[in-house]
Amino acid sequence: MDRVLDAAILGASGYTGGELLRLLLGHQGVSVVYASSREYKGRPLHYAHPWLRGFYKGLRFSELNLDKVSEVDVVFNALPHGVGLEYTRQLYEMGVIVVDLSADYRLKDPRLYEEWYGYTHPYPDLLSKAVYGLPELHREELKGARLIASPGCNATATILSIAPLVAKRLLREPILIISDIKAASSEAGSKPSRGNHHPEREGALRPYSAEGHRHSAEAEQELSGLSKVDVRVSIVPHASPMTRGVFASSHSILNDGVSDSEVLKAYAEVYGGEFFIRIQRNPPLRYPDVKNVLGSNMADVGYAIESRVGRVTGFAAIDNLVRGAAGQAIQAFNIALGFEESMGLLHPPLRP
Amino acid sequence: MDRVLDAAILGASGYTGGELLRLLLGHQGVSVVYASSREYKGRPLHYAHPWLRGFYKGLRFSELNLDKVSEVDVVFNALPHGVGLEYTRQLYEMGVIVVDLSADYRLKDPRLYEEWYGYTHPYPDLLSKAVYGLPELHREELKGARLIASPGCNATATILSIAPLVAKRLLREPILIISDIKAASSEAGSKPSRGNHHPEREGALRPYSAEGHRHSAEAEQELSGLSKVDVRVSIVPHASPMTRGVFASSHSILNDGVSDSEVLKAYAEVYGGEFFIRIQRNPPLRYPDVKNVLGSNMADVGYAIESRVGRVTGFAAIDNLVRGAAGQAIQAFNIALGFEESMGLLHPPLRP
Amino acid sequence: MDRVLDAAILGASGYTGGELLRLLLGHQGVSVVYASSREYKGRPLHYAHPWLRGFYKGLRFSELNLDKVSEVDVVFNALPHGVGLEYTRQLYEMGVIVVDLSADYRLKDPRLYEEWYGYTHPYPDLLSKAVYGLPELHREELKGARLIASPGCNATATILSIAPLVAKRLLREPILIISDIKAASSEAGSKPSRGNHHPEREGALRPYSAEGHRHSAEAEQELSGLSKVDVRVSIVPHASPMTRGVFASSHSILNDGVSDSEVLKAYAEVYGGEFFIRIQRNPPLRYPDVKNVLGSNMADVGYAIESRVGRVTGFAAIDNLVRGAAGQAIQAFNIALGFEESMGLLHPPLRP
Amino acid sequence: MDRVLDAAILGASGYTGGELLRLLLGHQGVSVVYASSREYKGRPLHYAHPWLRGFYKGLRFSELNLDKVSEVDVVFNALPHGVGLEYTRQLYEMGVIVVDLSADYRLKDPRLYEEWYGYTHPYPDLLSKAVYGLPELHREELKGARLIASPGCNATATILSIAPLVAKRLLREPILIISDIKAASSEAGSKPSRGNHHPEREGALRPYSAEGHRHSAEAEQELSGLSKVDVRVSIVPHASPMTRGVFASSHSILNDGVSDSEVLKAYAEVYGGEFFIRIQRNPPLRYPDVKNVLGSNMADVGYAIESRVGRVTGFAAIDNLVRGAAGQAIQAFNIALGFEESMGLLHPPLRP
Repeated sequence: MDRVLDAAILGASGYTGGELLRLLLGHQGVSVVYASSREYKGRPLHYAHPWLRGFYKGLRFSELNLDKVSEVDVVFNALPHGVGLEYTRQLYEMGVIVVDLSADYRLKDPRLYEEWYGYTHPYPDLLSKAVYGLPELHREELKGARLIASPGCNATATILSIAPLVAKRLLREPILIISDIKAASSEAGSKPSRGNHHPEREGALRPYSAEGHRHSAEAEQELSGLSKVDVRVSIVPHASPMTRGVFASSHSILNDGVSDSEVLKAYAEVYGGEFFIRIQRNPPLRYPDVKNVLGSNMADVGYAIESRVGRVTGFAAIDNLVRGAAGQAIQAFNIALGFEESMGLLHPPLRP
Repeated sequence: MDRVLDAAILGASGYTGGELLRLLLGHQGVSVVYASSREYKGRPLHYAHPWLRGFYKGLRFSELNLDKVSEVDVVFNALPHGVGLEYTRQLYEMGVIVVDLSADYRLKDPRLYEEWYGYTHPYPDLLSKAVYGLPELHREELKGARLIASPGCNATATILSIAPLVAKRLLREPILIISDIKAASSEAGSKPSRGNHHPEREGALRPYSAEGHRHSAEAEQELSGLSKVDVRVSIVPHASPMTRGVFASSHSILNDGVSDSEVLKAYAEVYGGEFFIRIQRNPPLRYPDVKNVLGSNMADVGYAIESRVGRVTGFAAIDNLVRGAAGQAIQAFNIALGFEESMGLLHPPLRP
Repeated sequence: MDRVLDAAILGASGYTGGELLRLLLGHQGVSVVYASSREYKGRPLHYAHPWLRGFYKGLRFSELNLDKVSEVDVVFNALPHGVGLEYTRQLYEMGVIVVDLSADYRLKDPRLYEEWYGYTHPYPDLLSKAVYGLPELHREELKGARLIASPGCNATATILSIAPLVAKRLLREPILIISDIKAASSEAGSKPSRGNHHPEREGALRPYSAEGHRHSAEAEQELSGLSKVDVRVSIVPHASPMTRGVFASSHSILNDGVSDSEVLKAYAEVYGGEFFIRIQRNPPLRYPDVKNVLGSNMADVGYAIESRVGRVTGFAAIDNLVRGAAGQAIQAFNIALGFEESMGLLHPPLRP
Repeated sequence: MDRVLDAAILGASGYTGGELLRLLLGHQGVSVVYASSREYKGRPLHYAHPWLRGFYKGLRFSELNLDKVSEVDVVFNALPHGVGLEYTRQLYEMGVIVVDLSADYRLKDPRLYEEWYGYTHPYPDLLSKAVYGLPELHREELKGARLIASPGCNATATILSIAPLVAKRLLREPILIISDIKAASSEAGSKPSRGNHHPEREGALRPYSAEGHRHSAEAEQELSGLSKVDVRVSIVPHASPMTRGVFASSHSILNDGVSDSEVLKAYAEVYGGEFFIRIQRNPPLRYPDVKNVLGSNMADVGYAIESRVGRVTGFAAIDNLVRGAAGQAIQAFNIALGFEESMGLLHPPLRP
């Protein structure tokens, strides 16, 4: 494709919005022409994202105006869960391609919205039209998609950590996966709170939402779909003292007699050709490290087996704002629109 | 007791040694008169621990001389695993009370040393005389003990996180506990390495020893002893970007029909009278946070149940150098010698 | 003194309040019987300071009631600048000993309140009765003092860093000291803000109040008093990514021909007998490090001379909440009341 | 230019080498074909830089072989000071364009090498041929340059922080600038040491090389050149707890009567057209923050005046590995070779 598409970002003043702005700067097929923010309307983008000063000339935050928004080719909807649900539907019906980064269109079964989110989904038909935007699992469906439901960060890490073992049916059934998540502070968004106040969050480590985390529903949907059997996923997230990153340790039980090399082969087969997934198993690294993916769309995966007790743990390390949000949304969008899948996403990780 | 005992610290220049020095300063019944270090011999203590300058007048590191050491009343042996094994035996036989902070005398079954540590334990008889120094589990045995094997930090966190559910037989049998550990950088000791080089460790999160962590053996011994059935423990530790602290999330499956209030009752009954254990379940905190215990001997515990899938997670947050090492050693020593159990350990946590 | 004094803390739910509570726990001559907080009234202390749970039995936050407060022997007033000014006066007049941790009574010259704080001080007479609570400078005046104005944290670090060179008149006159301060996030208090939101403050380094910081007034008053000549102090503070600590680098010009050994001698003479001040100049440390004092009342000081250009820099590292607030207040109080000066303050620093 | 140049990196396994590799990936005019490392020779690049795995296919570290190296068009020499001095000369004489990132060719006056580095420079003639690679100061000289001496990170921050005030002669003469530097841990390189061991460096703040920092020589050379009068620069660096970033606070005295708007005008005139320099003075930011430039080649500058005492402080925030090393080297190289100046350097900063 040669022509440059016009893009709008809804909810552009949050961290995910900032990351979409950062990444789309380097995307040759897209030009961001609209960025909505109630809090910052009328202000230049660098009022919310001071680090981007100088990179976006002329563009200012606007209050959300659907008529204006509908003039663009594609909308990245980064509004909070529930808040942008209606906009996504309307824009979709107006013919705009929508990448929705909230949970509003991720679940296929409308009853799950009642169970996990406490409301009746008003557009169950639309749920079946939305494609769950995890490229490695839904690449074919994404081609030509007009409504993409971009996965949650903890769900992405959970799914990628153990998908090969589920797909290859190497886990003991009935399958229960306990995904112990370590999540950075930016996951909680840009709004200050006592819990994320620097003197209190720095050096802290504590669980949250440990009695049923909503991303479990997505992870179960996707992993069950992959294995054709019912997979139970129990996510136990922990606020950890990084500013970026999600690390998933997905614990389960291996089928009797499954060897280490069979497990490695499963990861290699499922992820072999994927540019954005690196299997970290051999030297120099035995396991993934969240620090090796920061700033990038890479997902580093791996595993560990304690054969003595049959336990296997699938690991995944991602940047919550890139692979867990903005980057993955762009990757899915690239597939949908026929761009090179890695367009705008070739930044290597930033380290040390 | 009124008289002040003379104490020696072997391996006093490491982090655990420094913490023993810090805590014993405030202990009215003990005076540190000897501190061994090969690297720093002849130097004042603040060469290894600059923060302690001014607190220990006159005392310098000595090369380890057993005749000298044997003149004290009690030895805290903080030498690395294997290195101090022989010293502990000799001192014990010379009639000195020994608190060994290594793994050398923790396991009752000598075969476990072959399985987990790769050597044949030379003094199996002594293993039965050593008391595993976890005060809340072995308070009676500790009274009058002359050889205390102080628990490992990851083992301590694992055991304390879920002991009540094991003791009350609330977990589905055969019991498998997967303890997902988040460990601070000081756990790896004071020797610089690429993995703990500040630019690389800050903001990092990665597993280590994830295919069978040695502390599993202690945890299995203790939890099996507590429940009278075989308990399997699989520890999966993660290097996390704190400088102090261990957080254990011990995942298992609840027996059918066990309610939240039964679980709470188990914690309350088992830990009810313990000064150094706080159950964090009610406001203002729903779960423990490692930051709330730093610098102190407190262990904050709690749990979360996802009844939908039967998963229960026991939590524990400790300071790896205090409750996970020096503090717990002093607590056990206090019991053994008949001191007030909290002597020298009443520092509240330091926060923010 | 044998009897235990009753103490009240006003503004007890902030970080300084929490630190007063932590330190007074170990003070044998004081018992905290009253802790005021509007936000937390009626709540146990651990609602504001979860880490203190279990250490204060029975005590709850109260709304500030002057009649009740006036029944105690001593009040530590940790209310913000201006807010507690009136309470301090009334309590003082009611015969209660007051340690005021705000700036309200620090400056002797009432005009400075107009210049630096923008208001006319209502009780200029009281200013002359208050003793500036920097023990190493005002120990004699503090004995028997009934109103103590506890110094600001940045002022404390600035003054201690360079007082010896001022006292010994080794700086080129007219004296200008540029104090470049590196301050931890807890200095800004416990109220969440965008600037101290963890994702934004972690790894950040930026100046604030760089065009005239209020603590300059105190520092000038004290250093001018010390040297009997007019000393100008310009403080340039920087928000730095620690949670605790203030590091002052006080730059000035040495008189011609002053040698390194004369400078060292000045520090040694002025600070020689002080338990809470350590001169860090010789191995193992060439300069102070803020990490070596955390959690303690120690002030580590030192200096560096670049003789090529005549520049000298005095250094000081303190814990902003201890030596910069609660600890220094208690030290001054101890002197005033005739307690052992170090009572309640013998915690060594916590490191690593 | 259309053709792609072959580049070699000497000392490619260090942090600067890694950053050159990261940035050159996105440079359309250069292809890295050679990367030297003694330690990692024969290994794929990701052995030293695990985060780059997958981005460089086929390239491995080689032991340095001058014949091979001389086949490339341009060499980025990231060897330590002194170590690469000879290679730079030989390659230059063989006709290869060399960007030397060490201090070996930065100083014009050979006597300064004796004074600051303790050795007699063997090629004083070459010093006059090398161009000091600070693009905003030497853009014209850089065009067509064949030997570029890339500035030191602390020098870069110092110079950029205050160059406008020097150039416009707004500082009181004789000019003395005291540059108080706050430097991240990656500045010290990738070799582990006790001082940069994570448990000890995290949360630490301490001076180093505070009695004459070598970068003072460069800063004096450049600022004196800019003002045509002798400028003295005294750098006082502080190890600060970030992993990336240098923040310079350059203190000096303003000429009498210079107003804030004159100072602002000086910055605006000197830096007005510069893409990589942002003046942070107006809302939303009053001062630079090191966090706003991380990962990018941006230099954020600003200032603060305390007119009461005549003090002015120029501020600069840079990423030590990008603007302080690899990025600035590429920027200078782009100018020298006639590439777009920002080629390969358009990554926006990464935040939060």
